[in-house]
Amino acid sequence: MNGADALVATLGANGVEVMFANAGTSEMHVVAALDDAAGIRPVLCLFEGVATGAADGYARVTGGVAATLLHLGPGLANGWANLHNARRAGVPVLNVVGVHPDAHDRLDPPLSSRVDQLAASLGGAVTRVHRAADVPTATAQALTSARQPRAQVSTLLLPADVAWSPFATAPGLWPTAAAHQPAAPRAHDVTEAIGWLRAGRAGLVVGGALSASNLSRAAAVAEATGARLLVETFPTIMDHGAGTPSPERIVYLTDFAVPQLSALERVVLVGAAEPIGFFAYPELPSRLLGAGCQVLDLCAHGGDVTTALTDLAAAAEVGEWRPGATPPPAAPTGPLTPATFAAAVAATVPEGAIVVDEANTGGVHLYDALAGAAPHRLMTLTGGAIGFGLPAALGAALGSDAPVIALVADGALEYTAQALWSLARESLDVTIVVVANAAYDILRLERARLGPLPTSGASHLLTDLGSPAIDHVSLARAYGVPARRVESADELVTALAQRAGGHVGPELIEVPLAPLAL
Amino acid sequence: MNGADALVATLGANGVEVMFANAGTSEMHVVAALDDAAGIRPVLCLFEGVATGAADGYARVTGGVAATLLHLGPGLANGWANLHNARRAGVPVLNVVGVHPDAHDRLDPPLSSRVDQLAASLGGAVTRVHRAADVPTATAQALTSARQPRAQVSTLLLPADVAWSPFATAPGLWPTAAAHQPAAPRAHDVTEAIGWLRAGRAGLVVGGALSASNLSRAAAVAEATGARLLVETFPTIMDHGAGTPSPERIVYLTDFAVPQLSALERVVLVGAAEPIGFFAYPELPSRLLGAGCQVLDLCAHGGDVTTALTDLAAAAEVGEWRPGATPPPAAPTGPLTPATFAAAVAATVPEGAIVVDEANTGGVHLYDALAGAAPHRLMTLTGGAIGFGLPAALGAALGSDAPVIALVADGALEYTAQALWSLARESLDVTIVVVANAAYDILRLERARLGPLPTSGASHLLTDLGSPAIDHVSLARAYGVPARRVESADELVTALAQRAGGHVGPELIEVPLAPLAL
Repeated sequence: MNGADALVATLGANGVEVMFANAGTSEMHVVAALDDAAGIRPVLCLFEGVATGAADGYARVTGGVAATLLHLGPGLANGWANLHNARRAGVPVLNVVGVHPDAHDRLDPPLSSRVDQLAASLGGAVTRVHRAADVPTATAQALTSARQPRAQVSTLLLPADVAWSPFATAPGLWPTAAAHQPAAPRAHDVTEAIGWLRAGRAGLVVGGALSASNLSRAAAVAEATGARLLVETFPTIMDHGAGTPSPERIVYLTDFAVPQLSALERVVLVGAAEPIGFFAYPELPSRLLGAGCQVLDLCAHGGDVTTALTDLAAAAEVGEWRPGATPPPAAPTGPLTPATFAAAVAATVPEGAIVVDEANTGGVHLYDALAGAAPHRLMTLTGGAIGFGLPAALGAALGSDAPVIALVADGALEYTAQALWSLARESLDVTIVVVANAAYDILRLERARLGPLPTSGASHLLTDLGSPAIDHVSLARAYGVPARRVESADELVTALAQRAGGHVGPELIEVPLAPLAL
Repeated sequence: MNGADALVATLGANGVEVMFANAGTSEMHVVAALDDAAGIRPVLCLFEGVATGAADGYARVTGGVAATLLHLGPGLANGWANLHNARRAGVPVLNVVGVHPDAHDRLDPPLSSRVDQLAASLGGAVTRVHRAADVPTATAQALTSARQPRAQVSTLLLPADVAWSPFATAPGLWPTAAAHQPAAPRAHDVTEAIGWLRAGRAGLVVGGALSASNLSRAAAVAEATGARLLVETFPTIMDHGAGTPSPERIVYLTDFAVPQLSALERVVLVGAAEPIGFFAYPELPSRLLGAGCQVLDLCAHGGDVTTALTDLAAAAEVGEWRPGATPPPAAPTGPLTPATFAAAVAATVPEGAIVVDEANTGGVHLYDALAGAAPHRLMTLTGGAIGFGLPAALGAALGSDAPVIALVADGALEYTAQALWSLARESLDVTIVVVANAAYDILRLERARLGPLPTSGASHLLTDLGSPAIDHVSLARAYGVPARRVESADELVTALAQRAGGHVGPELIEVPLAPLAL
């Protein structure tokens, strides 16, 4: 037994069942250790951003920790963007990153880099192991850090010599991560919150991971107090669809969010941060709430949302929230537009499906359209680092038995398209819908703020994806994923309905949309 | 005029002609400023690793600074791995990274991250601009940092409010980066070096950017002194082919490099670092030179290699180096193997071409085969972060009029395959040869050190790329790049010879190779 074996045994003892991996020479002893660890499934990703995005999706769906195996500084850097999304989602991810032995690293070999600093820039704990004997406790400590109440991205740096050095004796029990008790709100704050919500012009803003029962509690509280119920723009994962309250979603663009929220004088936050604009603008505020709006942070992201909402419901003496009768969404016909695209997804989403939304500008109607659809779970782009959708779908499919629908904009797809290969390799029931408007449409919109959108020059060249057109059918087939292009809403409905029966293996559907008229 | 305009004007005044870009909302004022800057060509890359790898290739070919435009922390992180390669190549790259205004960032919006720390982890200078008035001097300072004698990756963090704030008056002249004088060796060291080289069992190790004239000087010195002439495993860019000395290359694998170098008792380094193994192994040393070998670092990487070699040549009183008569490489026939692949490239490479080598295990015979080929320039994977080849070819093609041949392993291709789209978009004369052995063969080799290579389990799953097989012809076509698959050395020669006449636009050739028999 060596340090790598001790690592893998400790991970197994802590319930790690999957490692999303792109290993290299410095991780070869860990790979060998995984050979003997029947309980941990290694999933090869052709690029580290796929591995980390898959870990994010897996953690969101399972509620547990997800693990990656990465190669030195470059491997961690390649995975950084989707780890940023995971951090913003508040889900626990443990990266195991192989590094050079200290003595080797001091000689500055080609792959040496400031990997500790790089890992620290992710904002979570960085644990460097120094001796094989320390591996189990260091691993448990890194897992403990990942599972903070506000979960984080935790990185374990494992020097190759620690991995290959003998580990004397397996303990009777491998150390496990310490449990954290998420903070419950104080009774006094609950009472004050109810007062605020009843005072009129009030909002209850929820966010993070939202179960149907918690959404129902929140909706009942809002109904009883007369407050508006809102959800943050990009929640981690939420139950959604018929029978579950679909709170008013805070709009992405500052221009629209400010008027949306301007009437609010008091806001109570439960599992959500104060809404802040995605970007800064010379003429717009950064805080989306009005200048005079008071904010009560009842329960931070990562806090005990269930207790907070239960206490609020008790204090407001609310009954059970009952959904209104809404007809199921009708299948759309006619040309493909953002509206018919959203309607087609809503009309066909299978019950229990996981919907990953990275459709961006093409997906503006999705949330509302899906409110009456078959019950599903919805994951969104928490950190704004695009390239989340396909990898998250990979992780979600490995973390559950549910069918997965990945709705991905063509621009975003290109950051991590290699995930298609892993979807095919693992034979996962994932339907990928590529919303192809052949432009970074959000950037065209942003650029148009500054004056008329030029049809040539940098503003055109840096936002146009149409020259050459990307053939997503060909791209999917390159990775062993069956694919087709649809030309109407009717065809999209048919294609999605065919998938809805449950399938072994992924399929990609390209949905051409016109770019925004600006 | 605003801060973004001042940035672009300063870049233009400093000779920046291309920006490899993947911009977002926070860089929109820079994009708008580029509209009016006729002298700077914006090149859209679908992923930041493409932009930074292209910058690396561009800087290697032009000898000047290359610039990127990236979006916040995630954009910089996505480009980190190829910036690592650029740092290891010792070429100057300036990243312009848009960030949030300080006041916005303090509110912790979704895309906020520890971007300063992330940038610092690249090891180069990080310059954050605070006022529009400071933009020109900060930009010139960042460029000065990039152009240190040992060039580095320099990052300019440009808050959006600095970009959009008014810039009062354009100066008569925009500030320019300070010139650095690379250090020339001391006369005493030159004398000592010649003594070492003449003492027997000596090696002259060159590296970095190597011109034909410098290689000839080095070869003449080696010939006159009886020393062995060696080149580091991964030089930045070197003239190569018929008429130019092709030094013995230090072998990549420590197992072979140690015996290769064991007879050396004295080594003189010119533009190269002491050779260190890529990875550490329990049973092998990290230093590739024997324990008793003395090392004289005559001229550090980034130093004045031309003066060092000229002084050495003068001290050794050498004549002009004259190439021996070597027959041109013969076109191979028969099955595709690493040897026939290398011979096919050597037989067809057009004079003056730039060859980018990221063929990895499939490319073991390339260097020697190309020694007698038509004169060309060779770029290699300096930092070991794979995903370099295609982007570097993009940058090389934009930095010169030469045809470019990119030799890329199938595993490496997957890190930055999106570069294919930019190659098609820019209609560049780049021939991509994908060496497809459907495995991470180097990892199979490394894994086999630890015991018989399993045919299932993690060791198989994490090194196998064959299930499903990646269809590179389909992948290329997805991005608008014509492609074909060849099945024999004869077909490869034909395909390469057809490309050698000069073409508008890229083409991809898939070369299936068997994985190593282990």
